[in-house]
Amino acid sequence: MPDPIARLAAELGDAFTTQQELLEDARADRSGWVSASAPLGVVRAHTVEQVQAALRIATELRLPVVPRGTGTGLAGGATGSSGELVIDVSAMNRILEIRPDDELAVVQPGVINADLDAALEPHGLWFAPDPASKNIASIGGNIATNAGGLLCAKYGVTRESVLGLQVVLADGRLLRIGHRTVKGVTGYDLTSLFIGSEGTLGIIVEATVRTLPRPSHEPTTLVGVFPGVREAASASAAITAARLRPAMCELVDAAALAAVRDHLGEAAVDANPLLGDRTAGASLIVQFDDADAADRADAAAELMRAFSGIAQVSSDREESERLLELRRAFHPSLEALGEVLIEDVAVPRSRLADMFDEIVRIQNEYGVSIPTVAHAADGNLHPNFVYEGGEVPEHVWAAANELFTTALRLGGTLTGEHGVGLLKRRWLRDELGDDSFELQRGVKAVFDPLGILNPGKVFA
Amino acid sequence: MPDPIARLAAELGDAFTTQQELLEDARADRSGWVSASAPLGVVRAHTVEQVQAALRIATELRLPVVPRGTGTGLAGGATGSSGELVIDVSAMNRILEIRPDDELAVVQPGVINADLDAALEPHGLWFAPDPASKNIASIGGNIATNAGGLLCAKYGVTRESVLGLQVVLADGRLLRIGHRTVKGVTGYDLTSLFIGSEGTLGIIVEATVRTLPRPSHEPTTLVGVFPGVREAASASAAITAARLRPAMCELVDAAALAAVRDHLGEAAVDANPLLGDRTAGASLIVQFDDADAADRADAAAELMRAFSGIAQVSSDREESERLLELRRAFHPSLEALGEVLIEDVAVPRSRLADMFDEIVRIQNEYGVSIPTVAHAADGNLHPNFVYEGGEVPEHVWAAANELFTTALRLGGTLTGEHGVGLLKRRWLRDELGDDSFELQRGVKAVFDPLGILNPGKVFA
Repeated sequence: MPDPIARLAAELGDAFTTQQELLEDARADRSGWVSASAPLGVVRAHTVEQVQAALRIATELRLPVVPRGTGTGLAGGATGSSGELVIDVSAMNRILEIRPDDELAVVQPGVINADLDAALEPHGLWFAPDPASKNIASIGGNIATNAGGLLCAKYGVTRESVLGLQVVLADGRLLRIGHRTVKGVTGYDLTSLFIGSEGTLGIIVEATVRTLPRPSHEPTTLVGVFPGVREAASASAAITAARLRPAMCELVDAAALAAVRDHLGEAAVDANPLLGDRTAGASLIVQFDDADAADRADAAAELMRAFSGIAQVSSDREESERLLELRRAFHPSLEALGEVLIEDVAVPRSRLADMFDEIVRIQNEYGVSIPTVAHAADGNLHPNFVYEGGEVPEHVWAAANELFTTALRLGGTLTGEHGVGLLKRRWLRDELGDDSFELQRGVKAVFDPLGILNPGKVFA
Repeated sequence: MPDPIARLAAELGDAFTTQQELLEDARADRSGWVSASAPLGVVRAHTVEQVQAALRIATELRLPVVPRGTGTGLAGGATGSSGELVIDVSAMNRILEIRPDDELAVVQPGVINADLDAALEPHGLWFAPDPASKNIASIGGNIATNAGGLLCAKYGVTRESVLGLQVVLADGRLLRIGHRTVKGVTGYDLTSLFIGSEGTLGIIVEATVRTLPRPSHEPTTLVGVFPGVREAASASAAITAARLRPAMCELVDAAALAAVRDHLGEAAVDANPLLGDRTAGASLIVQFDDADAADRADAAAELMRAFSGIAQVSSDREESERLLELRRAFHPSLEALGEVLIEDVAVPRSRLADMFDEIVRIQNEYGVSIPTVAHAADGNLHPNFVYEGGEVPEHVWAAANELFTTALRLGGTLTGEHGVGLLKRRWLRDELGDDSFELQRGVKAVFDPLGILNPGKVFA
């Protein structure tokens, strides 16, 4: 048995490291999860060939491999542990091509979401997927998790923005899948199969992404404050039912709002006096970007009032941006309070208010506080558990378990956009059923017959 | 070896038939392809249980199975031949559920695309995928081929409108995949894997589809007539580059326009005097459906004029419908002239004019006429070969071969929306490459280990 460290160092040179600090970094992501011990080494790939070489060695030596981007995942999917080789592609961060006439871009996996968007702006183009972490998250990771975000209600998830991929397979072969065309049905849709596969099928080393024309009009933003979360959820449902098609519809409950207020201070919150109302039970931040956005916002404001909401419309860009910053500050605000377990259930939109009722019930039953934000127009909720110390306490897991099974009972799913990773794998079979679970494992075995790619993630 | 016909008749009763007329029907689809001989029988399924029973018997007896909907495919994918069992789900045509609040519908596979859309209209909802065959094509077939259509430029293909499926596997098990939620990343995206799988992985028996709010404004339609096809293609590219985002942008070349004119008569063409211009080299039919559609149409008309086009804007709904009827009449018009081999290449949008140049070259080199329409804003072309008699002549296959290899050379694909079926399988490996081809066969084997599902289709 050759020494894997010596072998990797010999073939990969400086791209391979066992530096303690970098090994420590690779134990964690942004979920709060930290693996039990450090991985054996990290390949900091700068080229496709380095990824291929690392995977050839891993196949030869049967080394478990953890693909990793900028480490902003929220399910533990990119965390490395004892005996594992982490392949970090965050330094592969070049935009290789922007084709304004084809409305596409070709990027390396480490390109930051917001950086691609900034590069597209001069061409009147836009990369629509916008996870709340867009300033720190890489496109490769967005694709590996099929990331969602704030604009999915109208613009879809990452899957809708990927045309083709280059992936390195477990044995080091480079595979090209998908198209540069906007349509194409030649054989199975392997591109979609890789999107959301969380590093279990191969390592994404290049992506051809679809871009959209930037909305031609300034968005109109509408804020509503409600006596309770049920009213806010009902107003969101009414906005959907009225076919108003918001680009964004974010719900923030009272506990979440309080955390943001405490974290950012009153001055930030004063950017919108409505949000400063400490008696509020929940608020909605809704954005329209059509040519008739103002009309749509007025119609939505009427619906908010029908559910006891106080509504205020703004078409000022800076004010809108400040409001969204409050929303994006939610996760850092909770982190300031302690360790956070972020959940990510989704339910059919019509069940959103019911799901909030269930969260109240679970809070009471388990004696925990669950500050929650929701991409309301998608029915996608992020209930959060804040706790002290390193390990997730058992009563928090018990409450999370109740949350997942409730979401499934309401016709929903245990993860809308964060992925399964380590933190949700124990519920995977419950949602998929035995047949689907086994078929998925069969598909994995086609791409990774030795089972070296991200073992233990997704599939328990 | 039990007699399969006796066995099927015993278990399925009236749902199984060997009636000669129905066997004959199942030999063909709308591509013009007719199989060499009739299948051994047809199951006309009315229930999921019948599909399951038929597949259990097929697995037991190793019978090859051909899944079939309304038979409107254009690649021979649903045609049955000697020794094969056709499972026809066109009679499973009930809309099971419409949920206006969730903007979704649950349908059986035989529901006609246009019928679903008509049922959604009272709710202000819309089923966006609109293949030209929408009045006769079933949703199951749309999904099995990932059908495109006229509105893909803005609204995407069938894949973007499917949330979940129920499929019967080769061994008769019923599998539920996907979600009722608009987001969901639990495990691999098996739903996308089935979309476009052309009956090779399982039989779709139920679909949960996503619907959209109907466009709130009357569409504005713009017609442009150009001296040549290069100018028309360039104008389409300019409309894309100006970020005007048409809902539809159809190019019809001179030969195609002449065929429509001959078929429908002058009276129909007089619906738009521009299209009656016999000196025209090509025309574009462009539609905008935003609130500011009229402004966008004016901007697009300017661009048309910059490419020597004569442009005319209409916001009259009936006139727009008449224009689209002309476009939809293209395929029947060619069928009136002889046998038709419909091709379906797609190229990156920036290469559309180049591809038309290549079609002119191929016409000259092979001495064939290739009337062509294109979903221009998608870069998706339908070049057509019209010929006499039953078999596709060798020189037509040679010209088609040149067409495919040219599309691949321009960065395109051999099928944008019709699928591979029988008629394009000989080029599949050329486009996919050996690795992808073998992986796809590996995926098929996970779902269909005995290889009984649509054998010989897609994979040669």
